[in-house]
Amino acid sequence: MQLGNASLKFVNPPRIISAASLVGQKEGEGPLGAYFDKIERDPFLGKQNWEEAESEIQKQVAKLALEKGRIQKDKVRYLFAGDLLGQLIATSFGTMDLEIPMFGLYGACSTMGESMSLGAMTVAAGYGDYVLALTSSHFASAEKQFRYPLEYGNQRPFSATWTVTGGGCVLIGKEGGIAQITGITTGKMIDFGVKDSMNMGAAMAPAAADTISQHFRDFSVDQNYYDKIITGDLGYVGQKILCDIMNDRNQDITNIHMDCGIEIFDQEKQDTHAGGSGCGCSAATLCSYILNQIEKKVWKKVLFVPTGALLSTVSYNEGQSIPGIAHGVVIEAI
Amino acid sequence: MQLGNASLKFVNPPRIISAASLVGQKEGEGPLGAYFDKIERDPFLGKQNWEEAESEIQKQVAKLALEKGRIQKDKVRYLFAGDLLGQLIATSFGTMDLEIPMFGLYGACSTMGESMSLGAMTVAAGYGDYVLALTSSHFASAEKQFRYPLEYGNQRPFSATWTVTGGGCVLIGKEGGIAQITGITTGKMIDFGVKDSMNMGAAMAPAAADTISQHFRDFSVDQNYYDKIITGDLGYVGQKILCDIMNDRNQDITNIHMDCGIEIFDQEKQDTHAGGSGCGCSAATLCSYILNQIEKKVWKKVLFVPTGALLSTVSYNEGQSIPGIAHGVVIEAI
Repeated sequence: MQLGNASLKFVNPPRIISAASLVGQKEGEGPLGAYFDKIERDPFLGKQNWEEAESEIQKQVAKLALEKGRIQKDKVRYLFAGDLLGQLIATSFGTMDLEIPMFGLYGACSTMGESMSLGAMTVAAGYGDYVLALTSSHFASAEKQFRYPLEYGNQRPFSATWTVTGGGCVLIGKEGGIAQITGITTGKMIDFGVKDSMNMGAAMAPAAADTISQHFRDFSVDQNYYDKIITGDLGYVGQKILCDIMNDRNQDITNIHMDCGIEIFDQEKQDTHAGGSGCGCSAATLCSYILNQIEKKVWKKVLFVPTGALLSTVSYNEGQSIPGIAHGVVIEAI
Repeated sequence: MQLGNASLKFVNPPRIISAASLVGQKEGEGPLGAYFDKIERDPFLGKQNWEEAESEIQKQVAKLALEKGRIQKDKVRYLFAGDLLGQLIATSFGTMDLEIPMFGLYGACSTMGESMSLGAMTVAAGYGDYVLALTSSHFASAEKQFRYPLEYGNQRPFSATWTVTGGGCVLIGKEGGIAQITGITTGKMIDFGVKDSMNMGAAMAPAAADTISQHFRDFSVDQNYYDKIITGDLGYVGQKILCDIMNDRNQDITNIHMDCGIEIFDQEKQDTHAGGSGCGCSAATLCSYILNQIEKKVWKKVLFVPTGALLSTVSYNEGQSIPGIAHGVVIEAI
């Protein structure tokens, strides 16, 4: 059912049947370490290069989500997947063996929200009994693509985030499962003119604010309706900006706001500056800690809002700003 | 309605309300020149660089499709769009002013098939009254991203294709319009191990064959059912491989096969070697010549199969092959 200008409410909410997460050693040593399905100590995951390592993350979380859901891959109708790398090479090479009809997505670090939105729409419409929503990131493949070679050892400003090595996959179906997707609010491209590639939180916060306020309008709810509103990877800098914008709109979310980028690392001990980032940040946090809390009914209503900054070295070097996008997914306890 | 393993048949087929195309001068001088809505003689489209020029293509075809369909942009529920460039910068910057909730897609040159598939699914499910499906490519931004700087003046082998400067946009809705989308067959990643980045036709032909054969199985039809089966940008080399594979399967499509990459340029006069390519190749050809023929009922049943090669300079330089994907969309006269 269409709500407002940018939202859907599902009359028969699709279910999250199972979820799987895999992270690297650093993430495993962070505050959420106990919640992840797999912690991989080899940053190459036994492969030859960083991109193949990231593909291996996607392959493993997809396999594990299917195993946990006890569903064979040939029962899965569609795969909605993407990653941060140009031409989605982590996804292309990571998901080939699944042999599932695929829609490749690019929403930067908002990809988990985008893939779950389209996956839920697909299942709710009866287009498939099961679909997979999947994404990943890798610290080293992202640094290589977007910033400096690791060997260069560049200094990182305090506004910079640390790309999470990890991935998450949810299996979405019609019945049973651990949680339900009751609605979505799809984001627009938002550009506040931020041009600092070492401050992605500032680039994404206005997009998160836009999607959350749009969601409140479309669903006729406010911040009191949710146990948690969880953004993807704004980090400490972006969180402050988001809460300031929301306060200016008399929508104070300070008490219920949580950011996966803040949760996944220990800022003091792990030297991660503004927090974690990357598609894998919100995906791995959702598929471990967040869904665990929802399944246990610690949180009954969660607005999950992965945030993406459309950073490209090409447009950045041409003097363009970094626009953001954020996709909202309402996840509720069963 | 789900059909077979990878297809949907729409009980109430969504309509293509309107379509718009824009191409560069070279494409305008080709055999289809008279069919395009706009031919732009300035390769920069008045902008500062190739990427901004490509963004301008997306902006203009989206605006024109809305004008031709007489629909205001605020009536459009979702935008399904993408392009060839890393992090979809042509789309990100080109569609921002539309302020439409957006799903960013990456399917390489198959993007028009991917965006129309998801757009048709969305409208058929009642999730939106109108959606836009949009993509583009630009010869110079693609050469810069994937091959050599233009200034290098490299020689191109005869198996190479020429990336089309152009774009296409369709407005999909429930009623009226110029054609209907009656079904889709969604492609899988297919890798036959092709490693020659100057022979994309060979990389994509097995994916096209896979999707077409899957479509025949799912819909219980054969090559005699269609007036045309139209691939995206296989070019002369890929067409031969596709027809050979299909012949081996006793599915001879030679007489009804057409390839946008072959149609859009005059091979002898325009020095384009194996043909045209790029997301804009199939998009601009669909939104001009193909839909014109369907609207006039010259062709009543068309299987439109844009083809994509998941080429990345990173994975290519790491010795990986180039996998392909192809998305089938059944377009019928009203």
